[in-house]
Amino acid sequence: MAVNLKIPSESEIFPVSGVDIGVAEAGIRKAGRRDLTVFRLAEGATVAGVFTRNRFRAAPVQVCESHLAGGDAIAALVINTGNANAGTGADGLARTQATCTALAGLLKVRPTQILPFSTGVILEPLPVDRLVAGLPQAIATLAPDNWMNAAHGIMTTDTLPKISSARKTIGGHTVTFTGISKGAGMIRPNMATMLGFLATDAGIARPLLEKLTRQIADRSFNRITVDGDTSTNDSFIVIATGKSGLRVESESDPHYAELASALGDAAAELAQKIVRDAEGATKFITIRVEEAGNTDEALKVAYAVAHSPLVKTAFYASDPNLGRILAAVGYAGIDDLDVGRLRLWLDDVLVATQGGRNPDYREEDGQRVMKQAEILVRIALGRGQVADTVYTCDFSHEYVSINADYRS
Amino acid sequence: MAVNLKIPSESEIFPVSGVDIGVAEAGIRKAGRRDLTVFRLAEGATVAGVFTRNRFRAAPVQVCESHLAGGDAIAALVINTGNANAGTGADGLARTQATCTALAGLLKVRPTQILPFSTGVILEPLPVDRLVAGLPQAIATLAPDNWMNAAHGIMTTDTLPKISSARKTIGGHTVTFTGISKGAGMIRPNMATMLGFLATDAGIARPLLEKLTRQIADRSFNRITVDGDTSTNDSFIVIATGKSGLRVESESDPHYAELASALGDAAAELAQKIVRDAEGATKFITIRVEEAGNTDEALKVAYAVAHSPLVKTAFYASDPNLGRILAAVGYAGIDDLDVGRLRLWLDDVLVATQGGRNPDYREEDGQRVMKQAEILVRIALGRGQVADTVYTCDFSHEYVSINADYRS
Repeated sequence: MAVNLKIPSESEIFPVSGVDIGVAEAGIRKAGRRDLTVFRLAEGATVAGVFTRNRFRAAPVQVCESHLAGGDAIAALVINTGNANAGTGADGLARTQATCTALAGLLKVRPTQILPFSTGVILEPLPVDRLVAGLPQAIATLAPDNWMNAAHGIMTTDTLPKISSARKTIGGHTVTFTGISKGAGMIRPNMATMLGFLATDAGIARPLLEKLTRQIADRSFNRITVDGDTSTNDSFIVIATGKSGLRVESESDPHYAELASALGDAAAELAQKIVRDAEGATKFITIRVEEAGNTDEALKVAYAVAHSPLVKTAFYASDPNLGRILAAVGYAGIDDLDVGRLRLWLDDVLVATQGGRNPDYREEDGQRVMKQAEILVRIALGRGQVADTVYTCDFSHEYVSINADYRS
Repeated sequence: MAVNLKIPSESEIFPVSGVDIGVAEAGIRKAGRRDLTVFRLAEGATVAGVFTRNRFRAAPVQVCESHLAGGDAIAALVINTGNANAGTGADGLARTQATCTALAGLLKVRPTQILPFSTGVILEPLPVDRLVAGLPQAIATLAPDNWMNAAHGIMTTDTLPKISSARKTIGGHTVTFTGISKGAGMIRPNMATMLGFLATDAGIARPLLEKLTRQIADRSFNRITVDGDTSTNDSFIVIATGKSGLRVESESDPHYAELASALGDAAAELAQKIVRDAEGATKFITIRVEEAGNTDEALKVAYAVAHSPLVKTAFYASDPNLGRILAAVGYAGIDDLDVGRLRLWLDDVLVATQGGRNPDYREEDGQRVMKQAEILVRIALGRGQVADTVYTCDFSHEYVSINADYRS
């Protein structure tokens, strides 16, 4: 049911030198599925991350933030599905720490060199015994070419694995960018039940990597929304191993822009793939707000439209019920919005202008666009020069079915 | 499909002296349905209203606000369904004004004494010719006992008529409070696609009625939400005819409190009936936030929970997936929320405490509450003394069906 989600073939997935991946079936929630993934990083790799802003930050998020802030060299990542270890209090923290300690022992590193991630049901105790028992199997399978396995290993209600992989020549070096992500509902800005792991064999100084990770998250994972829910566990991690020979220390480096752009493209692809495979999605919707006075108001309008169940069900029905879009713009919270200056397009079809329907608009033109699997909604506010874009999907019967049945 | 929505019998509906109501089938969108309603008010009635805060305020809302601000004595209300006359620009305003002029001519009053209301599809021209042609039929049926007819006449996707009626003895006078409302989706605070008309035969000085109307709207129509959408047309009107003999001039009047309380109860009943008959609703959910530092944060939390599609689909499924409620509390926007102080109850079942699941909580207790048609979610924040309550419903397959098919 995913919308134009391209899965690269094995020959299109480039391993990242310095990253080995192992995957196991630990039976964390259900038997017989890949639910435990370990990333082992070569010495010298730098790592940065951004995490959910939900006040109920899950235990693994708290531990990740603590380990990254501590400054120890990150040596491995461990990711489980089936249980989010969120809303689990002090006991949940202890279970995550036990996971780190177990993996550190097996890899002969310190627990503070481990970053843990969990996704799945919240408010239930993490079955840490089964998780730890699965670690040797994951370690036994560590290999550079396990990206597709890992993409499967982090899936929950995702219907398809999400991988982005590219190679570029930068400064005479062949540099690889490969990443995976998972969704699939509960996605909104400031992270969601989403995990993203992006690795490059470029070398990037750690303070620079931290800043860059925040920037590319803002243009990728923080610009997608499925249902307006922000989860307790969202994490986006960028790993730079340095094995390609290319090394960038600062923004003034001549190769910085090209490297940042390649990482940004990879993150955008991983984020948009989450929307393409959102729970029940049948359409991929790009909402672009132009002529805003500032970014804040551009995003207010874009998210009001993107979150409106009435707009999303109209997209599902291929119904050009454009008044619902105008109504959402109207309640977005811009108190001095002059609706007489607003214009609204569906792709290239001018739908509304001067506070009402474009006199030349024909229903069949709107209908034609609404039937597409990918739709651009463009809204010009007539207030300034700022533009911003948000990606979302429609709202279907299947969304309700999936979320009404998730635990059963 | 409505949840415990009580429809009074004709003998339980008390006419309000000074209010005559006529209803017609004007064929505004479809033939053969009551779609045009006229209220004629006796001389001396005072009227106050609150209206949508959507920036796309429909033409009738703009005209209502203008006529009320002008201070002319309101003599009649005219309400059509089938077309909202919203997003229609200057032409829409002209059509609403033509409606007022036509009704004023028939009733021999001034156009500024008419309040117009429209609900239905937005962004399409109001068929004012058919509307005006239906006015004589509506006027011919003017009678005090037409409340049930009017409740039908203002319905759109509502499945049942919504009426509240009560009589009280106040200050030795028998005072009547009768009102109607319509939903049914696109309901959220600051009004929705909802109309509410509440009349009493108490006499209330106009400045006092205006203040009182805002206050009772805040405790009724501004405390309900179905899908987070705020429409372009929402209006709540209170009419005080004075025919009972009771007259209240100020808040210091000895009968003010009792009168305000009765009007507030009627408004709350009309508002809650909208949620009980919300599109696709199978459950009526009361979300009460306690121990908040102020009203703003109480409402932030209540609405975050009430708007979460994940929470709403869990209610639909009768699934005590309480982590979804905690997650919504966590992203409600209280940056310094201490999740360790939070407690969560489903009815009387303590579910979460100290940042995690209550150790004594048993799934079957949560399950029992979730299966009920009416559920109280109680959240204590541990921050202060303020409490507030919001009413909402679950999110079902039927909601998607209704809104994906609305125009077809």
